[in-house]
Amino acid sequence: MAEELSFPTGIGTSDADQIRLLGQDLAADLMGKVGFGELAFWLVAGRRPTPSETRVFETVLVALADHGFTPTAIAARVTYVSAPEALQGALAAGLLGGGSRFLGVTEDAGRFLAEVLAGVAEVPSDDAGWDALATAAVTEAREARRFVPGLGHPVHKVQDPRTPVLIRIADEEGLRGPHLRLFEAIGRVHPAILGRTLPLNGAGVCGAALADLGLPVDLLRGFALLARAAGLLGHLAEERRTGLGMEIYRTVDRNARYTP
Amino acid sequence: MAEELSFPTGIGTSDADQIRLLGQDLAADLMGKVGFGELAFWLVAGRRPTPSETRVFETVLVALADHGFTPTAIAARVTYVSAPEALQGALAAGLLGGGSRFLGVTEDAGRFLAEVLAGVAEVPSDDAGWDALATAAVTEAREARRFVPGLGHPVHKVQDPRTPVLIRIADEEGLRGPHLRLFEAIGRVHPAILGRTLPLNGAGVCGAALADLGLPVDLLRGFALLARAAGLLGHLAEERRTGLGMEIYRTVDRNARYTP
Amino acid sequence: MAEELSFPTGIGTSDADQIRLLGQDLAADLMGKVGFGELAFWLVAGRRPTPSETRVFETVLVALADHGFTPTAIAARVTYVSAPEALQGALAAGLLGGGSRFLGVTEDAGRFLAEVLAGVAEVPSDDAGWDALATAAVTEAREARRFVPGLGHPVHKVQDPRTPVLIRIADEEGLRGPHLRLFEAIGRVHPAILGRTLPLNGAGVCGAALADLGLPVDLLRGFALLARAAGLLGHLAEERRTGLGMEIYRTVDRNARYTP
Amino acid sequence: MAEELSFPTGIGTSDADQIRLLGQDLAADLMGKVGFGELAFWLVAGRRPTPSETRVFETVLVALADHGFTPTAIAARVTYVSAPEALQGALAAGLLGGGSRFLGVTEDAGRFLAEVLAGVAEVPSDDAGWDALATAAVTEAREARRFVPGLGHPVHKVQDPRTPVLIRIADEEGLRGPHLRLFEAIGRVHPAILGRTLPLNGAGVCGAALADLGLPVDLLRGFALLARAAGLLGHLAEERRTGLGMEIYRTVDRNARYTP
Repeated sequence: MAEELSFPTGIGTSDADQIRLLGQDLAADLMGKVGFGELAFWLVAGRRPTPSETRVFETVLVALADHGFTPTAIAARVTYVSAPEALQGALAAGLLGGGSRFLGVTEDAGRFLAEVLAGVAEVPSDDAGWDALATAAVTEAREARRFVPGLGHPVHKVQDPRTPVLIRIADEEGLRGPHLRLFEAIGRVHPAILGRTLPLNGAGVCGAALADLGLPVDLLRGFALLARAAGLLGHLAEERRTGLGMEIYRTVDRNARYTP
Repeated sequence: MAEELSFPTGIGTSDADQIRLLGQDLAADLMGKVGFGELAFWLVAGRRPTPSETRVFETVLVALADHGFTPTAIAARVTYVSAPEALQGALAAGLLGGGSRFLGVTEDAGRFLAEVLAGVAEVPSDDAGWDALATAAVTEAREARRFVPGLGHPVHKVQDPRTPVLIRIADEEGLRGPHLRLFEAIGRVHPAILGRTLPLNGAGVCGAALADLGLPVDLLRGFALLARAAGLLGHLAEERRTGLGMEIYRTVDRNARYTP
Repeated sequence: MAEELSFPTGIGTSDADQIRLLGQDLAADLMGKVGFGELAFWLVAGRRPTPSETRVFETVLVALADHGFTPTAIAARVTYVSAPEALQGALAAGLLGGGSRFLGVTEDAGRFLAEVLAGVAEVPSDDAGWDALATAAVTEAREARRFVPGLGHPVHKVQDPRTPVLIRIADEEGLRGPHLRLFEAIGRVHPAILGRTLPLNGAGVCGAALADLGLPVDLLRGFALLARAAGLLGHLAEERRTGLGMEIYRTVDRNARYTP
Repeated sequence: MAEELSFPTGIGTSDADQIRLLGQDLAADLMGKVGFGELAFWLVAGRRPTPSETRVFETVLVALADHGFTPTAIAARVTYVSAPEALQGALAAGLLGGGSRFLGVTEDAGRFLAEVLAGVAEVPSDDAGWDALATAAVTEAREARRFVPGLGHPVHKVQDPRTPVLIRIADEEGLRGPHLRLFEAIGRVHPAILGRTLPLNGAGVCGAALADLGLPVDLLRGFALLARAAGLLGHLAEERRTGLGMEIYRTVDRNARYTP
């Protein structure tokens, strides 16, 4: 059966003379003229970010690039020990830990905030208004026995140092929008509702900031993964020099206790 | 058995008050002050790049971010169709195609050039010297029936548009070093040796430029993967809107011919 | 800080003389004495299956091993084209499509049936009782606008040929338990509730059969993945001979239409 | 452009009424009639194995299913901790460690033996002949400073318990072929050449046995991966109950030492 095939895309194509990317000529219009973070934003959002948006966006990527010996870093390192000839496998193994428990918080927080905002006719115009909206949202989550994403951190029990810095930078760039405002309000009102004071964590504030940049909430996890890809390359570069993954493996193996 | 454990790392750690990354305070010293590409370089190289190095490095990442419907993009898209709830899996599936045939050329070219340079006591000081070195290297590869990585491209048969642009930018930034010089010389001398004229491809020139930045050749593939991670997010964002991966799957499935 | 570490496991450990697996001596007690499917069951369930259980279990694995050019097969093949030196990457890329839309149905169906059964004090003793339970469950799902997992198939619109065979084999082995009974009843009662007649699909009946074997519903997807691993190896072995993945890639690439 | 597409495959296809697999009707001819290991062999080899071949093949899969807390098991477990909703990601992360250092030995040994055998006009007819061939092969490897794959094991320093059992079973089934004979001869002759006595390891003997079954040496790693998929499911089932991966992560994290 002869058929007409057509696979339309606005990302990129190439022919003998030109590589097109996002409606631009890659070599003539993009190389040397657009930063890598700027391009990543453009690829997902379908529009070029402003310099202010790029600054906030790259700040988020920097904030999420690494968080020490997380499961993602451990998985990448032991996989590299086992298959050093396939760097792509070690990187992929690390990224596969980017799920609900660790990197997923960024997306969960962005989605939670976006859903609350989708339910109001008009966004509040002052802190009292934000606090009222946050109080309703946290109360509802509590009653549904759901966590509020972005609240609490196993290590930073009082304050996550990333949170105020990202809010300040977004403010400097005129991008402290409704998702961040709502997130901040949650930080103010939740103690009275939940009976304890939790920090607004870094992953959550990053989700709020990304949502304020107009990026699709269903893909926020993708930016956490992109940021972590850079962090994992750092771990793998160090692994190549120091062989820590082998130490991790040996430590686990020699302390195995057989309990059938 | 009680044992003293120690897992040393210079990448990152955190405690209740601070997140350290690369010897810096993440929140105070890095967020808003370092770009994402700059951080990625720093993570792998262990040193902060200069602005010139950052420009060349980001140009490479931009050049490698996408190349249309490659196997990596197809794998990511059909995996997203099948498991849209796990974006990390679709991204990982795409990156797993970053092996010898496609993204690997960047690393292969960087390594080839580095090995040739490692064999000379002193780098040439003029084009004639570079041409002599390139002639020896290409001749040796031909006699060993090995390909010269970075030569030739299935689509860009005459010139890869990325190549002259990256060389120009490296030159503008004072970073047109020995790997690029040797690669350019290979472009000049190979027709006489191989009996046909091939373009210097974009992946190869990127490998040469990254090697000139002092990045470890064993990890050059990692930068191609990082760049491609951004491109794949673009494909997945588009997939979410247009469902092309489903069309690819259906096209293949309905044209299956059973030939036991 | 010196610390006592202990990583208890009942899967396997080894010392200089012996490899233990599941409380057995691997070389003396298992090799040549236990089949591979039998071992897979044992590993997950923590108990050795009976011969009848093994027959039903292996029938499920055979049923799920392949379903033609699914996204999983396409992803594995194009990844192999791109990185043939890393077979593990091609296999992993294929398995990453084992999510909610394709392979996940097995687990979803098992879980749905298990949840319905968990809500009744006593399982029905005759078809009329099963039909009543099924009617309640399908009605509730319809009212909640949820799909009933295991109903319907894009290709097998009238009957999935795997379904009656698996039910017959389970019956022969005395393992046609409550999950299968409920699933069959759903097949009988759903037309009157949903207004159209859908087949009980193969993935669903496999989920029901696995649940009747007492396997944990949260891990049923794992068996679909194990089965598919074998199917993917078949695709990769064929890919190695025929290069179909390259054809798929070229077909997509040459029919790309740039629509910025 | 209208085009005729054809994607030929001998693995499987399906239409409304039938699922074909390997030239058979899946439901009528395979389900309940072929074991899972048997099917995996058939999928890769393109022919149904004999009962003797199936027994040796499944013995190999059983032998390779698990080897305790290897990097593959650790990667799978910590990934599951991080993304428990995506079991396919945890399994894939584990399999990605199936590279040159751990699971790859099976394939490396099979290939090494096959290459030695490919260089002889006629296989030896007695132990003296095998020893001569093995002596030449080990001597050549030593002179080229290459390892002989399958020799030596970090834990089983004197004897790998899997090795004699697999040789015995292959012998019982009349499948102790040239690859196993050569491997055994390497076990006899290498001490005189290498100056120390190493055990023939389990991964190596499995590679020899698979090669004697006529399976393609380029895909032997695939069987190690299939076997390990079952072992990893066992680890993940245990992880679900005991949360060991979280303990591994915490152990590494709390013993991090920052050394910028």
